[in-house]
Amino acid sequence: MTVTADEELTALGAVGRTPCLVIDVEVAGEQYRRIASAFADAEIHYAVKANPEPALLRALVEAGCRFDVASRTEIDLCLAAGASPADLSYGHPIKKPGDIAYAYARGVRLFAFDSAGELDKIVTHAPGSAVICRLLASSDGARWPLSRKFGCTGEMAVDLMKAAAVCGLDPAGLAFHVGSQQLDPGRWEPSVALAADIFRTLEQSGLSPRILNAGGGFPVDYRVSALPIAAYSVAIHAALFRHFGHRAPKLMIEPGRYIAAPAGVLHAEVVLVSKKSYSDESRWVYLDVGRFGGLAETEDEAIQYALATAHDDGPTGPVILAGPTCDSVDIMYQHAHYELPLALRAGDVVRILGTGAYTATYASVGFNGFPPLRTLTNP
Amino acid sequence: MTVTADEELTALGAVGRTPCLVIDVEVAGEQYRRIASAFADAEIHYAVKANPEPALLRALVEAGCRFDVASRTEIDLCLAAGASPADLSYGHPIKKPGDIAYAYARGVRLFAFDSAGELDKIVTHAPGSAVICRLLASSDGARWPLSRKFGCTGEMAVDLMKAAAVCGLDPAGLAFHVGSQQLDPGRWEPSVALAADIFRTLEQSGLSPRILNAGGGFPVDYRVSALPIAAYSVAIHAALFRHFGHRAPKLMIEPGRYIAAPAGVLHAEVVLVSKKSYSDESRWVYLDVGRFGGLAETEDEAIQYALATAHDDGPTGPVILAGPTCDSVDIMYQHAHYELPLALRAGDVVRILGTGAYTATYASVGFNGFPPLRTLTNP
Repeated sequence: MTVTADEELTALGAVGRTPCLVIDVEVAGEQYRRIASAFADAEIHYAVKANPEPALLRALVEAGCRFDVASRTEIDLCLAAGASPADLSYGHPIKKPGDIAYAYARGVRLFAFDSAGELDKIVTHAPGSAVICRLLASSDGARWPLSRKFGCTGEMAVDLMKAAAVCGLDPAGLAFHVGSQQLDPGRWEPSVALAADIFRTLEQSGLSPRILNAGGGFPVDYRVSALPIAAYSVAIHAALFRHFGHRAPKLMIEPGRYIAAPAGVLHAEVVLVSKKSYSDESRWVYLDVGRFGGLAETEDEAIQYALATAHDDGPTGPVILAGPTCDSVDIMYQHAHYELPLALRAGDVVRILGTGAYTATYASVGFNGFPPLRTLTNP
Repeated sequence: MTVTADEELTALGAVGRTPCLVIDVEVAGEQYRRIASAFADAEIHYAVKANPEPALLRALVEAGCRFDVASRTEIDLCLAAGASPADLSYGHPIKKPGDIAYAYARGVRLFAFDSAGELDKIVTHAPGSAVICRLLASSDGARWPLSRKFGCTGEMAVDLMKAAAVCGLDPAGLAFHVGSQQLDPGRWEPSVALAADIFRTLEQSGLSPRILNAGGGFPVDYRVSALPIAAYSVAIHAALFRHFGHRAPKLMIEPGRYIAAPAGVLHAEVVLVSKKSYSDESRWVYLDVGRFGGLAETEDEAIQYALATAHDDGPTGPVILAGPTCDSVDIMYQHAHYELPLALRAGDVVRILGTGAYTATYASVGFNGFPPLRTLTNP
């Protein structure tokens, strides 16, 4: 995202006090159109958890986007933004019974699951709905990998889909997720292959699954650039053709980061620049935002944001970048070899780029007494 | 903390919906009296960041406790609870100039620092105040260690204390912190020895430092029990005598966890119990609270809470314990060999014990659309 000097001044005038996340809704709209164009045959469900800002949701509704929701609050936000319940997918495989009932009462008819226990709840509280069974998938290659928290084995998925049909649900398809900020376009294929196997097994049992939800994970430019989105589309479509032939299912994807991240710039203030000893090479730079104020994805230095300051033309030196709380794990970058201008001083603004996703809603309610991250939208 | 069946029912009646943190203010008061008795010669400053609940602060003011604050919000909370500004220490070494001025205007006259840049701010915005220079300290042995984020070397501390005197501040003493939930009573001694060296050097330069702030870190019982607080008092006082002889400085300590943790029980609901495959030994147990809802200190499974359920008399089996969000790092315990009753079902309540410190204020404002952790106080 390029910010001109004028835009920057305007934004800072509006920002007033830091830290503040400025979301450019038009950039999110452009990102939606870019991925919708690359995946012209797919249903695009924006993963609301990435950033549920109402102005952003309204822009995406207008652009024709669908939504992936994780809670009753996210359902309310999407409906308030003008989305149709038919365009909502309750993609979180683990839900309270009351939340399923709440979604069903508001017209949501598409639910994810990955276990017999969850299936029971959906049968009871969302009878007749379409369900998508989530498969375990490897997230090797992802900057923010997904562990084994969600999904089940193919063997179990077959049984669960059959059980769903027996219970009067519509066993609509399968889902998987290869991990967020997944840089390797080849990582989708193994799960596409597994899904194709399961589709064939289910069809032999008389079921007709029709949707493959290939999840999100589509990467954006941080400090390191990602491949263009077309590379991921090409790889996924090649995998679909290789494993499904001409009988490919309807493709569904759930981009969150890809749409929201480039739309955000987090304005932070330098609270202190210091050294711990006379022999230290690196300066410590303490910002007024950190891991508990919205930069949770810097855990283990996983997501490495690009930074911009007013001194970027001058010479730089190595820094350790830390947040404002008394908690010593509140350090963003200690091993990732960040450099910042030697001219940087307390009171200067550091712009943290690409921070539109997985930031504001992660902020703590008030650890150390610091207020949560504010969001301003633009225009 | 022992909760009787009656208390439990009362608490649950009040809780209504989970997750909910129930704080027993009397337990916090008992903990204060326990540590004040073990450290009868010390000034006890409760680290407000551990839990800034107003009822808890009021009880501590009444008990005669002082306070360690990290922000203007925490200052306001302490003053509102009835604390005198003379009993507040602004112990965060990194502050915005406006926050220092805010504290000074409200009567705070004791500030921590660890760098020349911070000293400049204090000179300008809190003229004539007492300052305490924080030293780098090893936090080996701590469950929640403190890295190098705060503190400077002894060599630099000597220069900073001299500079403070020249600038009209009162160079009152030194501080260090051996890491939170520090289990080893022997870990305070190396920093006491370093501080004694610096005291002698400063005295030779004509300064008269008089306070040694030995920080917090005093451990509480989680899944594993800690030594009684007397063990830490004995070790610290022995170190003081060994290195300062009969000229020991005034001791100051900053317990946070020790006072607040045992006062809290987090009531959570089981959202799902499932397996990922037919061959898995461990069940996955998903609660409605996790790393982004207040259990931030389960990062890397550092703090291992004791759990209680209504089925604890029955047989148990291994579990992986995960939180409710779609984020796959939202797993509390995967390698720590937790077991829970085989009878545990979705809808059951799990009580997470010892959760009065570093929980509620860490909770995210609304990641995945889940509301922040509520706190109820008792009585």
